[in-house]
Amino acid sequence: MRYKISIEYNGTPFHGWQKQDNLPTVQGSIENVLTKIAKSPTELFCAGRTDTGVHAIEQVAHFDMERDFSPWQLQQALNFHLMHSGISIFNVENLGENSTFHARFSAVSREYIYKVLNRDYPPTFAKDLFWWIPQKLNVAAMQQAANFLVGTHDFSSFRATGCQANSPIRSIDSINFSVDGDVISMHIVAPSFLYHMVRNIMGTLCLVGREKINPLEVKNILEATDRTKAGATAPAHGLYFYRVNY
Amino acid sequence: MRYKISIEYNGTPFHGWQKQDNLPTVQGSIENVLTKIAKSPTELFCAGRTDTGVHAIEQVAHFDMERDFSPWQLQQALNFHLMHSGISIFNVENLGENSTFHARFSAVSREYIYKVLNRDYPPTFAKDLFWWIPQKLNVAAMQQAANFLVGTHDFSSFRATGCQANSPIRSIDSINFSVDGDVISMHIVAPSFLYHMVRNIMGTLCLVGREKINPLEVKNILEATDRTKAGATAPAHGLYFYRVNY
Repeated sequence: MRYKISIEYNGTPFHGWQKQDNLPTVQGSIENVLTKIAKSPTELFCAGRTDTGVHAIEQVAHFDMERDFSPWQLQQALNFHLMHSGISIFNVENLGENSTFHARFSAVSREYIYKVLNRDYPPTFAKDLFWWIPQKLNVAAMQQAANFLVGTHDFSSFRATGCQANSPIRSIDSINFSVDGDVISMHIVAPSFLYHMVRNIMGTLCLVGREKINPLEVKNILEATDRTKAGATAPAHGLYFYRVNY
Repeated sequence: MRYKISIEYNGTPFHGWQKQDNLPTVQGSIENVLTKIAKSPTELFCAGRTDTGVHAIEQVAHFDMERDFSPWQLQQALNFHLMHSGISIFNVENLGENSTFHARFSAVSREYIYKVLNRDYPPTFAKDLFWWIPQKLNVAAMQQAANFLVGTHDFSSFRATGCQANSPIRSIDSINFSVDGDVISMHIVAPSFLYHMVRNIMGTLCLVGREKINPLEVKNILEATDRTKAGATAPAHGLYFYRVNY
């Protein structure tokens, strides 16, 4: 049977999604439970691997298991074993024996949210869930700059060294900023992203927000296809894997 | 000079507001910094002391200090020393030398919020900031029951043993429930509260929400003036000192 699961996780205690020997990871934690439940080694495939400290509101993954559980039973068993880990399963679907669904390869697009806490005094609640920026950000200027990035471009200026993608060309479907009290969120949608691309974009847009550079400069940075022209990488703990579209 | 400060804090790492030897408390943490800044022992008085694990969105406190700082300087100095403690100062006012303002005795009413995370899978983000209740709550029934508590009554049924108030009579100005996604909040306003009164009320209203008792039963519980008739005390980590009115 192929099962599809939806996962919420707090990235703070984990060394990212991908399994590593002797380090707590999201994949490792869930696979350990699945292997226990299935009584045989079970491998998990996700829609988008996340780095150390990055959160997920709805990560999607799939796995195959011989034993036939009801989705509800499986969800309860997973959440029981994962209690207090920072990982929670909120949907399980049994796709049957002949499903060709693949959490990664069937995905049409991925959505991320980046959250900034924008106020002049330090965070007290959930400090690992936002990037705290005390200087007042100009959100209209950030949106104006972001609009230059939408569409198909060579994103070399926003690509981390170590990125294993064959091409620096990516297509951004949309970037939208919203404000809720003192929280500023960037919502970005694309079929796929380069390594650290969302955090590199956010780091650069925050320079625009702080009025260190003007919005039009982001167009020049993009066209330079040179990582050294863009801003620093925004910290991992403001980033959320938000959703995946199939 | 008398100074008035507004304080946000995450109650998780603290043994409540009130100073205790060799235990981390909110009062103790701020007084330590003030004493350092003032270069003489400085005592802090707050609007409403909170228990271990209880948070504050806007606690108000006052203190006297000989040295004359600008409010902005004082706020920056406090937040610098309190960085990463879970305490943040977001307003400072210099009330001058002849102020009779007292954070506790000048208060006309106090407001608390109690937050429940109401969903069937466990919390991953901010698990110390909500009471997680997996069973679906009937919020309309909770509001209906809460309405019996508004007004002046003998609240003995909701008063913890160890309460040092002279009288069990209190006047609740309002109780209002609101829902935001899977978070249910109770907002309660009164001139003052008995010990554990808000948490005992919430514990009882959640029995109504889970349809263990009907809303009218809360009227009987109130009238019984007997703590054993009401529900269990709701956990501290869902409770927020929200605001104080002068």
